[in-house]
This record gives sequence, structure tokens and C-alpha cells, in this order.
Amino acid sequence: MPRPNGRKPDALRPLRFKRRYTRHAPGSVLVSMGHTVVLCTCTVEPKVPDFLVGKGKGWLTAEYGMLPGSTHGRKARDKGGKIDGRSVEIQRLIGRSLRAVVDLAQLGERTLWIDCDVIDADGGTRTASITGAFVAVVDALTSIKKDLPNGVGGVLSDSVAAVSVGVVDGEGRLDLEYIEDRDAEVDFNVVMTGSGKFIEVQGTGEEATFTRKQLDALVDLAAGGIADITKAQKAALGKVWPL
Amino acid sequence: MPRPNGRKPDALRPLRFKRRYTRHAPGSVLVSMGHTVVLCTCTVEPKVPDFLVGKGKGWLTAEYGMLPGSTHGRKARDKGGKIDGRSVEIQRLIGRSLRAVVDLAQLGERTLWIDCDVIDADGGTRTASITGAFVAVVDALTSIKKDLPNGVGGVLSDSVAAVSVGVVDGEGRLDLEYIEDRDAEVDFNVVMTGSGKFIEVQGTGEEATFTRKQLDALVDLAAGGIADITKAQKAALGKVWPL
Amino acid sequence: MPRPNGRKPDALRPLRFKRRYTRHAPGSVLVSMGHTVVLCTCTVEPKVPDFLVGKGKGWLTAEYGMLPGSTHGRKARDKGGKIDGRSVEIQRLIGRSLRAVVDLAQLGERTLWIDCDVIDADGGTRTASITGAFVAVVDALTSIKKDLPNGVGGVLSDSVAAVSVGVVDGEGRLDLEYIEDRDAEVDFNVVMTGSGKFIEVQGTGEEATFTRKQLDALVDLAAGGIADITKAQKAALGKVWPL
Amino acid sequence: MPRPNGRKPDALRPLRFKRRYTRHAPGSVLVSMGHTVVLCTCTVEPKVPDFLVGKGKGWLTAEYGMLPGSTHGRKARDKGGKIDGRSVEIQRLIGRSLRAVVDLAQLGERTLWIDCDVIDADGGTRTASITGAFVAVVDALTSIKKDLPNGVGGVLSDSVAAVSVGVVDGEGRLDLEYIEDRDAEVDFNVVMTGSGKFIEVQGTGEEATFTRKQLDALVDLAAGGIADITKAQKAALGKVWPL
Amino acid sequence: MPRPNGRKPDALRPLRFKRRYTRHAPGSVLVSMGHTVVLCTCTVEPKVPDFLVGKGKGWLTAEYGMLPGSTHGRKARDKGGKIDGRSVEIQRLIGRSLRAVVDLAQLGERTLWIDCDVIDADGGTRTASITGAFVAVVDALTSIKKDLPNGVGGVLSDSVAAVSVGVVDGEGRLDLEYIEDRDAEVDFNVVMTGSGKFIEVQGTGEEATFTRKQLDALVDLAAGGIADITKAQKAALGKVWPL
Amino acid sequence: MPRPNGRKPDALRPLRFKRRYTRHAPGSVLVSMGHTVVLCTCTVEPKVPDFLVGKGKGWLTAEYGMLPGSTHGRKARDKGGKIDGRSVEIQRLIGRSLRAVVDLAQLGERTLWIDCDVIDADGGTRTASITGAFVAVVDALTSIKKDLPNGVGGVLSDSVAAVSVGVVDGEGRLDLEYIEDRDAEVDFNVVMTGSGKFIEVQGTGEEATFTRKQLDALVDLAAGGIADITKAQKAALGKVWPL
Repeated sequence: MPRPNGRKPDALRPLRFKRRYTRHAPGSVLVSMGHTVVLCTCTVEPKVPDFLVGKGKGWLTAEYGMLPGSTHGRKARDKGGKIDGRSVEIQRLIGRSLRAVVDLAQLGERTLWIDCDVIDADGGTRTASITGAFVAVVDALTSIKKDLPNGVGGVLSDSVAAVSVGVVDGEGRLDLEYIEDRDAEVDFNVVMTGSGKFIEVQGTGEEATFTRKQLDALVDLAAGGIADITKAQKAALGKVWPL
Repeated sequence: MPRPNGRKPDALRPLRFKRRYTRHAPGSVLVSMGHTVVLCTCTVEPKVPDFLVGKGKGWLTAEYGMLPGSTHGRKARDKGGKIDGRSVEIQRLIGRSLRAVVDLAQLGERTLWIDCDVIDADGGTRTASITGAFVAVVDALTSIKKDLPNGVGGVLSDSVAAVSVGVVDGEGRLDLEYIEDRDAEVDFNVVMTGSGKFIEVQGTGEEATFTRKQLDALVDLAAGGIADITKAQKAALGKVWPL
Repeated sequence: MPRPNGRKPDALRPLRFKRRYTRHAPGSVLVSMGHTVVLCTCTVEPKVPDFLVGKGKGWLTAEYGMLPGSTHGRKARDKGGKIDGRSVEIQRLIGRSLRAVVDLAQLGERTLWIDCDVIDADGGTRTASITGAFVAVVDALTSIKKDLPNGVGGVLSDSVAAVSVGVVDGEGRLDLEYIEDRDAEVDFNVVMTGSGKFIEVQGTGEEATFTRKQLDALVDLAAGGIADITKAQKAALGKVWPL
Repeated sequence: MPRPNGRKPDALRPLRFKRRYTRHAPGSVLVSMGHTVVLCTCTVEPKVPDFLVGKGKGWLTAEYGMLPGSTHGRKARDKGGKIDGRSVEIQRLIGRSLRAVVDLAQLGERTLWIDCDVIDADGGTRTASITGAFVAVVDALTSIKKDLPNGVGGVLSDSVAAVSVGVVDGEGRLDLEYIEDRDAEVDFNVVMTGSGKFIEVQGTGEEATFTRKQLDALVDLAAGGIADITKAQKAALGKVWPL
Repeated sequence: MPRPNGRKPDALRPLRFKRRYTRHAPGSVLVSMGHTVVLCTCTVEPKVPDFLVGKGKGWLTAEYGMLPGSTHGRKARDKGGKIDGRSVEIQRLIGRSLRAVVDLAQLGERTLWIDCDVIDADGGTRTASITGAFVAVVDALTSIKKDLPNGVGGVLSDSVAAVSVGVVDGEGRLDLEYIEDRDAEVDFNVVMTGSGKFIEVQGTGEEATFTRKQLDALVDLAAGGIADITKAQKAALGKVWPL
Repeated sequence: MPRPNGRKPDALRPLRFKRRYTRHAPGSVLVSMGHTVVLCTCTVEPKVPDFLVGKGKGWLTAEYGMLPGSTHGRKARDKGGKIDGRSVEIQRLIGRSLRAVVDLAQLGERTLWIDCDVIDADGGTRTASITGAFVAVVDALTSIKKDLPNGVGGVLSDSVAAVSVGVVDGEGRLDLEYIEDRDAEVDFNVVMTGSGKFIEVQGTGEEATFTRKQLDALVDLAAGGIADITKAQKAALGKVWPL
């Protein structure tokens, strides 16, 4: 079974960033990978959570949600204390991924709030969220750069991007869309820096298992995709990044 | 104090509809009134709430939310049972407004779910939600028209639109944007049908009061604005509405 | 179909106030309109919500509930984070209505808590709540008058009362009881000051619509009823109000 | 220190019942013991909880609440999942106490809902609730007596009443009011049937301890008080009870 | 019907304490009474709840839970705001029982947190919790004895133990196990000090009633059992208690 | 810095299983890895969640919790709708890991509930939970083997075990205990089958990054540890596994 639209196994879907998509948040990026569309905003709050008060450093936290109409069959909103475990897991991943490249001491006593809201879902919403959130963080930090002791570059040591890879019909494929993701035997989400280091590798046999050889091949495939995503992030940011 | 951008007291902000904005929901409309942007989706669920089971008629319900980055200073998400009273009030208004023109018996045992999510807020998000939701409902009903005994027109007897009006600096003004709304002495939200009947009139003196004369003038102002909005809805729907 | 008990279209039900109904709250009024009975208490808390701390002004907030046995078929209590949207909407209305006549700066850093609990429901519970709450607020303020820089009159600029009106069988009627309210084609709640100014007008076609002419007639009908309610409030308060 | 109002150690406060206090619930009793006032309603629901479906027997459950203005300093309402442990404890006690005299098989597949809402609190609200609830249950059962195979007497084998006793200043006292309850070294709540059997004895040293001799004396004191309360219940019920 | 394992009516089940069962909590006791096993930990927190701040005294609070696998048929965990009334009732009892022998002023501004988690349930989990919690409190206080002005003995005036008694097949029995508890006509939980004073007596006819004579006999039976439990607590504590 | 207790980089902590630790759950295993102790129970419920009703297959789900006294400083219980994101993430991992080796169709319309409750925490609680849960699942399935069409082996295709690995002071280490985990630069959790296939690889640079070479070395280290754990599981299960 070939890929939808004749895409090659190691090809990304079209990737686009619309910066300054909304007016209030200093970082506001609409990122699309194929039909998956996520609005990533980054807001700067001039205080930190209780556990950091008085420590002279900042914090970065992320929240992730899906709009009810973003997926097939309407997704009910969280309410009244019900827990959507998948959303919790994803927002923790987004937060960890961005914190890996942020020097919280350079940020001062501020919190960066990242909100990733899925407008349209077609697979890869968590990786698109991370990829778009990085661009939003750069814009948010740029908006307060005069208040940062060593500028945006003092806070951000590297860029961050993420991609999914998986095994479908026995073939390793990059950047799965929904109908591939649904049928994948193995599913990896990989987060890396622009300089090629790993931040997070999460691989799971979906009610199945995988071999060491598959693990190696998938990680290679992801690394190639992330190099391309990093280029697209730079192109979108223009003069703002890298510094 | 003149209006922002030299707008006349009885002029609407630019109003635009993008239909089929997302891919999953059969009705999906991005409505913008000036800088206010709301995504209105309408989903059809093939069942009804418990209190209607077996009665041979359908239901229509609405939910309203603001994305965290849509407003100044980040709006916290609802969670863990906290009640955002304003959202509750607004979503009840949206539901009542649409039900006023929907013949639930003609809908059959189905629920129309309307979701209005504010992408960018600059005043008038509830009225833009109602205005956009009507267009989304038409598209959603069109997607199931072969299952409706008397087609879309059997379900929908009229169109619905809404607008805010208020008194600012002693002057009646149509379609308030945020900085006007914040300073308004009197604030009305008016919902009407395309044929000029009233569905809902909600007027409040914001920690103040108003006279009968002001009430009359504001209702007239709103009626004029809604006639223009109705035209814009028809233009956006093209051949689909009216039937 | 004539009105129950042969009541005239513009006649109120019997209206009574029992002040000092309970012992702890400084304002405690049992208000009855026909068979509808609401206990309105007003408590003074010597602090303000977080968003007002240090601003030298006070706050007024309201909560509304129905006792489980107050209505046909037992009303379940709110619990565990479930939202009763109607109660939320009503308590926001009560709060706004009273704040319209209260000078919060004159109140000092205090919160007036209004609690309206429905003992017996027969239509018009929200308007009876507002009407009774005003009397309770006067009594509560009187209990702290020595601490108010300009006395009770410094805080309260006017009285507040509310009434419902509606169209039943094509006839405009004042002060609907439950079986009328259930069948009303149009339903208005109107809040006005004792001096005849409007605070809030909320009119809705109950899954129907109404004309401008109906709107005008209903507002006139409400204004007449509120004048009578205002007299009854004054009579109940005796020397305490107006000052 | 003598008792307030010169009351004797073994004297009850004035006890009154107002039956049919509200119109909807078939049992609706306003019970007052001195300044303590509780509205007890009993509603009959024609179904049972899941764990009893199809077993041919009924259920009885109770809920207890305090109106916000019923006590000194305003009692916040439960909301958003917060647990008021004291209310939970009390409503479980009320339910157990009434179930002790109810033959659930004779009730059929129905649920008796008891709601005890405190209007004014001056000590002894849980015992007044039980005492009043019994009267409300009799009235509710009487309203469905034609549907009960052996009438009201088939369901209810005995009456139920409750009273508090305690040790204050070393003296055993019956039916404590709030200022006594607050200072009591030992505090008992006793629930008995009209025929003199015990249903529940709950005695606690309030951050203190008590002796076997005190236990015996307090139980005797309670038994005497309950005999008087039982007479008052009979007087209030007139021909309806006993059968 | 004789007791399981031929136990005598006034005999306890085998009672064992494993102190220092876990490593983090300063008091950590695995208590078993027959097949009932509860882990009781006591943690010292160097602050007090808001209502005690600045009053120079401490607090003691308890929480009780059952592990899902501890009982027949898996017990669902509490979540999302659902209230398990029985657990609430039990943890309030545990807290009151321990506070009866603790001098909170001697504790200083600290909170003793008691956690009783049922590992295996076979009747009497609440009384085993109290019995084990006392041992855990002694160990926790011993760990901070150098910070207590008058040592452990300054805080703890006496020991505490609890036991259940009941009437099964007309016979009074001590320390009921599950199959007895389930069938008991009368069920008492009694909490006493080591010196023979009562802290709490809770007796209930389980959907039945009991006589004064039964009450007396059951309290005697409990007092005898508690004397034996007190000895076992002393043996387990060795030199640490009494001081 | 050498490892605590002179442990070698590729050595596991002592690993023990106590089967049949509690009496009610058919699978009940106390697993300890060094000082980390987790109680894993597995209960069989004779029904499936709504989304599987009528599909002729079963389900397996897991819940994870920490007892309040299991960790330094007392861990507050979840309540009232608060979300502990870490617990959610862990219980989803446990569920996925076990489902990878379970044939849900062979299970029939039953749910396996796995509960992992941490008694004492010293690092690696999630991996110990998975390792112990497998043993509990074998025991639970054995208890119903006569109802399984192809016995326990029809349901379970392989065993499952998990271990953590990390980089501390630049050195790759197996099975981190708490003080190592806290300081690790890189932290992996690896889940594998007894036959050497991977189920899940989750690696994260803890606010840092890692190289491809580190990734490879850590995965090798984990695979070696899991082979040892698999042997210990077999030894603990004796004749019951493999079949």
C-alpha cells in the first residue's frame, strides 16, 4: 500500500508557519503539517509558580487541547474534573521539550505559558505542537528582549523540533498522517535540537512489539526529518533566529 | 471621543465568513468582525439527550470557549470543576438563539452540536458566535439534507443574527469593539431573525441605569445592524440559503 | 384562557416581606409573591476578593439556589463539579442588579454576600430574589451604618425591584406564575430602580420570536408592576428606607 | 453557670412542627427546637438506585445542608468537588436512622428522598433533622398510601426521634443549644424509636474523654427527652400517626 | 452458629504491629488484626492549616483509604470530585480519636498527618486504623522529641485504642470479622484511652434497633478488648511508651 | 562518584516478588527492587467498557498511585478533580505495556484491572510496577483458566518486564535508585518482552539532551537488565509460567 498522495517514505508533509496569527499573545503561530493545523501561542506572565518564588529563575509550562470540531465525531471538552489522560501526557511532553533548550535562570522570574490548540487534526498533532511552539517562544522572548540580561540568545541555547515516524505495512515512514498512524505497527515521536541532539525518544509498539533494528532505522528516519523541519523554522523566523 | 478608525455610530466592523475552515465538522465557519475572530463548528450526532429519547425529535446545544491566547493576559482554561459563569451564560444564549429558528421535530433524533471557540477577542464574541453559528448550521444541515423529510428548509424556518449596541460617551453605537465595550454605560445584545423578528434582547446598565428612550434607540440601532449582517450571511451562503 | 384566580393581566400576585426572618444574617428577608417563596439573606464580610485588595472599595456578590423540595419532582443538589447553568445565569443577574445601585467605594473594603434560596417555586423566583435582596441589603447596611462614611444613603443611591412579564395566549401579562411561564410565547425579566430607570431588560422568545410592538408593550407592563413593587418595598422597610 | 433562659438540665427547648410548609413535596415539615429551624421535605421517586433494581424493594436516602445565612459568619456552599465532611456524616446518620423503622420491601420500588435544610442554626440541627424528617416521611407515605400493600403502617414499624445531650460545666444537660454545645466536654447524639429502643448512640469526648458513669447518665437523660419528643410528634401528626 | 475458627465471644483476633514498615514517614506501622491489614503512617509537617496560623499550637488530621484490591470485587478509587461518604466519616473519627490524647499546644506549629491505607480488609478496618495510628504517632513524635518543650509525654497524655463489638445471632461478640459484621444486628465502634476512659462510642442498629441492656453489655465487652489491645501496643512500643 | 552500596553500573538492585500478598484480588504481588516496594493487584471484572460491549473481546486497564507516606515529605492524595499528570502518564504506560502481550479476544468479555500502589518509593516505581503487574496478571488469569478457551497461554503470548537506565556523572547505569535518578542527565524507561522484543522506549534528557551514541548504549544496558528480570519473574512464578 503506497502512501497517500504518493508521498515518499522519508518525505515530510508540506509545513507552514503563520507568525503573529492572533493579536494578544506575543508569540502566536499557526503551524500546519499537511492537514494538521495547530495554533501555538506563547504568553509571558511576570511571576512564577509557588515552588520557584524567590529563586531568581523562571518557568515554562505548556497546555494542549483539541477543539471539539477538530476531529472526526466531535471531541467532548474536559469538564467537571474528568481527566483526558492523553492530553495530560502530551502537554507534559511539550513542556519538557521546550525546557530542554531554555535557560530558566536567564529568563528571570517569569513564566512562559505555551498553549497548543488543535484546529484540525490529521495525525502528528503533538509533534506539530512542539515544532510550532518553538517559533512562538522565539517571538515571545523577542517581545521582552530588552528585559533579558543576555537577550533572546541567553535564554535559548538551541532550537527544538519534533516529528513522528512509524512502521506501516512493514515500511518505515516519516511524519505519519492519521490513516497511517491508525494502522502503524510501531509509532515513535522524536524530539531533537537544531544541532542534532536528542531531547526525547518515545517509541511504542501499538499493542505489538518491535526489534532493535527497527528502533535504529526509525531513529535515523526521524533525525533526517527533523533536519528539514529545523530549516523551515529558520526560514519562518528570518532575522529573528538564529541570532 | 470619536470611534476607533473613524467608524460611524451605526456602522458595522468588516464582517467575513470562511466556510469549510476545518475538515471534520460538516459545518465549520471562521467568522470575523473586525479583530474579533471565532471558529464556529456544527457537528451532527445521531442521538439525543436522555430527556428526549423516544420522542421523535432532535436537539440543538451550544458550547462556547475562549482560547487561552485569545485575550489580553492569557485566559486560564476551565478545569477541575471550576465554573466560568460568563461562558455558561453565553453558551445558553447561543443555544436558545438557534433553537428559535429550528424545528426540532423535523430534525429527527439527532443532536446539532455547536462549538464557538474564540481565536481572537476584540468585543462582541457572543454576537459573532451566533452570527457564525447560523452559517455553520446551514452547512451541517445541508450535509444531511437527504435524511431530512422536508430538507434543510423544513428544519430552518428563518436565519439568525446578533449584534451588540451600547451607549459610549452618551452616544448610541453599533457593534462595539473591546475598548468601547469596556467603557460603555449601557450594553445591549440583540438577536433577531432575518425576517426582522426578535429572538432575544438583553440590555444591562453596566453598574448604571438607562432610560426608556435609550432602550428604544438602541433597539432601533441593533435592528439596522442585523439587517446588514443578514445580507452578509446570505452572500456567504450563496445558493445554499435561502432555499 | 383566563388567568388563574381571575387575576387581571396587569395585576401582581400578593407580595409580602418578612424581615429579620433568621437570626444570624444582618439582612434576612422572606419574600413571597403568590406561592413563590424565597429567603434572601445579606451578610457583610470584612474583606474583598483578591482582584480588589488594596483598592479601597467593596464588592457585592450573589448566590442563588433552589431547595430540593421547592419544585415539582425534587431538584438534585449541585455536587462534584456539575454546573447548573440556569443558577449561574440567575446569580450573575442578581449581583449585577444590586451593584447598579450600590456605590462600592462608599462600602469600604467589605463584601456584601447575597444568598437567595428558593423555599417554594411557582414562577418568578429570580425576580422575587432581586426584589427581596434589596430589602435584605438595606437591613444589612443599616446594621453597619456607623462604619459607613455617609451612612446607608451614601452606599445606596436608589432602590431596585424586578418583575417578569410575558405573552400567554397572545395576551401580555404581568408577574407570571409557573403554569403561565411554562406556556408563555415570550418571556421578559425586567429590573428597574425605584426612580423608574432600567437596570436590565432580558427578553426571550421561548423557542419563538416576538415583534417590536410586543417588546414595547411588555416593557410598559413591567414598568407599571415595578412601581407597585417599589411601594411595597418602602412599606416593608418603614423608617429605614428611603432615608 | 446556669443554662440560658433558666432552662432545667432535663428540659427540652420549645418544639414545634409546621406540616405542609411548602407545596410541592408530599412531606414538608418546618421543625423548630428553640432557635434552631430546619425544613425537612420528603419526596417519593418512583425508582430505586442501580444496586436495587429488580429486587422488589425500595430505598430511603437523606441529604443535609445549611443555608449560607443560617449560621454566624456565612457558611460557604459546597461547590466544585469540595467535600464538607460534617454534612456527609450527618446525612448518613439521618438516612440510617429512618431506615431502621422502614420496611423497604413494603415500600415497593420507590425511593424516599429526605432533604433537611437548616434555615437557622442554634445547636442540635442533626437531631432536629431526624425528628422532623420522621414527620415528613409519615406525610409522604400517607400521600401514596393507596399504592402501599399494607398501608403506611406496613412500611413504618415505629416512630423515630433524636436529641443531643452533653456535659457542660460538669453537669449533664438535655438538648444543647449552640453556646452550650460549643463548650461541652462530652457530646452525645441519641436516636431512639417511639417504643424506647435505641437506633444510634454517638458519643464523643470533644478533644477530651468521659467515664462509664457519665455515659450511663447521658443515655438516661436522652431517653427521657426522646419520650417527650415522641409525644410532640404524635400531637403534630394527629390522626395520621399512629395508625 | 459458632464464630469462625472457634474463637470465643470475648476473644480478639491475633494482633500484630510492624513498626518502621516503610522508610520515609517517621511513623510507619503495619497493623494486622486477623486478616485485616492496614498501613498507618504519621508524617510531621512544619506548618498548620490557615485557621490556626499564629496561634502557637499544632494540628492533627487523618486520611483513610482502601486500596482497590483490598476488598472483594475491587473498590474504585475516588476521583473527579466523587465523595465516598464512608471514608469521610472514618477519617473524621480517626482524627478526633487521636486529638483526644494530644496536647496541640505542646506540639507547636506543626501538623501531624495520619494516613491509614487498608491493604487487606476483613472487618474492623476503622478500629485497626486507630489502634495502629497511635503507635505511628508515638514513633513520629519520638523522631522530633528534641524539638518538643516537654518531650513526647508533654504532647501525648494517654494511649488510644479502638475495637468493634456487635450482636450476631443474639450473642455479643468482640472484634467482628467481615462475615460477622455483615450479619450483625447491632454494631458498635468504641474508642478508649489506655487508662480506661471513653473517647468515642458509636453504636448503630443496622436497619434494626437495640435495647439499653444490649448497649451496656456491648460497652463492657469493648472495654475488656481495649485493655488487651493497650497491652499489645505497649509491648510493640517497648521502651518508647509509656515514658 | 561511585554508585550507592558499591553497585556495578550494569547490576540490578535485589528483586523480590511476594505472590498472594493479599487475599481478595486473584493476582496480588508485592514487588521490591531495592527499597522500592509496590503492591500490584490484578482483578477480573466480568464486563468491558462501553466502547467494547458486544465485540466479543476483553480489556486491560491500569491505575497507579503512591501512598501518602511512600515518599519524602508526604504526597497529597488526589482529590476534588485535581490532576496528577505524572500518575496519569504512568498508568497509561502500564496499561499499554501489558496489552502488548495480551490477546484481548482470547480474554472474552472481561476486564483485567491492574492496580499498582507504591508502598515505598526509591526510584523506578513505574518499571517495578510493570514488572510486578505481569506476575499478578499471570496469577489472575490462572484463577480463571478454566473459562479461557485456550488457557492462560492463549491470552498471554509472552512475558513483560521493564527497567530504567540513565546517565549519571557521564556513566551509563542500570536500574537507578532515587538519588541517582534525581541527578541523572539522561533517563530512559525501557519495556521489553521475555523474548527480547521492545514494547516501549521512553528516553528523555532531563532539561538536557543526549547523543545517538548514548541512546544506543542505554538501550543495550536496559536489554541486559531485562533479561535478568525475566529470569526472576520465571523463578517467582515456578510452574505457572511459562506454560
